[in-house]
Amino acid sequence: MLIGNALPSGSGPSVMVSSLFLSTLLLAAQAVPSTPCAGQGADVAEICSVLMAQQTAWNAGDIPGFMRGYFNSDDLRFASGGSVTKGWRSTLDGYLQRYDAPEAMGRLAFTNVDVTQLSADATYVFGRWTLYREEDEPTGLFTLILNRQTEGWRIIHDHTSSAD
Amino acid sequence: MLIGNALPSGSGPSVMVSSLFLSTLLLAAQAVPSTPCAGQGADVAEICSVLMAQQTAWNAGDIPGFMRGYFNSDDLRFASGGSVTKGWRSTLDGYLQRYDAPEAMGRLAFTNVDVTQLSADATYVFGRWTLYREEDEPTGLFTLILNRQTEGWRIIHDHTSSAD
Repeated sequence: MLIGNALPSGSGPSVMVSSLFLSTLLLAAQAVPSTPCAGQGADVAEICSVLMAQQTAWNAGDIPGFMRGYFNSDDLRFASGGSVTKGWRSTLDGYLQRYDAPEAMGRLAFTNVDVTQLSADATYVFGRWTLYREEDEPTGLFTLILNRQTEGWRIIHDHTSSAD
Repeated sequence: MLIGNALPSGSGPSVMVSSLFLSTLLLAAQAVPSTPCAGQGADVAEICSVLMAQQTAWNAGDIPGFMRGYFNSDDLRFASGGSVTKGWRSTLDGYLQRYDAPEAMGRLAFTNVDVTQLSADATYVFGRWTLYREEDEPTGLFTLILNRQTEGWRIIHDHTSSAD
């Protein structure tokens, strides 16, 4: 994750710093390895790469690319708020419907991603999602269950919630 | 789970049935084995009993009893909406603060509880919670990670969300 993603778009005016100081600060921050995704288990790097690829696809406006992180199966379960969507195709349709314009998609950042690999083929992941948009900054939490499929680690259960 | 728990408290007046008919209906319903909690794995019954004990404790107004389903550890993670609470004691305090009266607690029903035991000591559970209260019926979803502790299966991660 680029550190730039973690800067709220409206964070500037209230902080009294020169642009030179800010540039220096950003350079220093970029020099420190960031760990937006970490955890326990042999496959943590591979699992993190699936999620980071999702973030990259989202930020390229590519929802089908984002969906590659999910198991392409009718067994996929996507739970959000009080509703459950079953199946990859229905989940894709839900995303396409809800995020039908670049302004709605904004820039996605996953942070505090904590991976716990339970076995050779089962992992759970907990983290925070934030959308940086012109008008608002919705944020919330996710818990994922991933299984190792023949094509690699894929999300089979996603539970997402939003801050009030 | 008693089927009575699933009856909204305000459902009476609009339904034109005699009390005799309703009693017969309830007796018939109680004779059918209900499966509010099911799943895959050797310990499903034991895991379901932990959750059903939580429901029973809640409906007796016993929040500390409800909390016995959670791992009594600083490692417990309770995620709700956009906020994370760490530790058993803080989670208990949150419940005591939010549900400080019988009217707030209402009657709790867990439904569609789906247990997937991943290994001898790791399980995830997905389901729906509903509170039947005088004024409203909040409902939502939960995803739980349980580990087998020396004292039995306990929730170590709870992600809860509410319908809008």
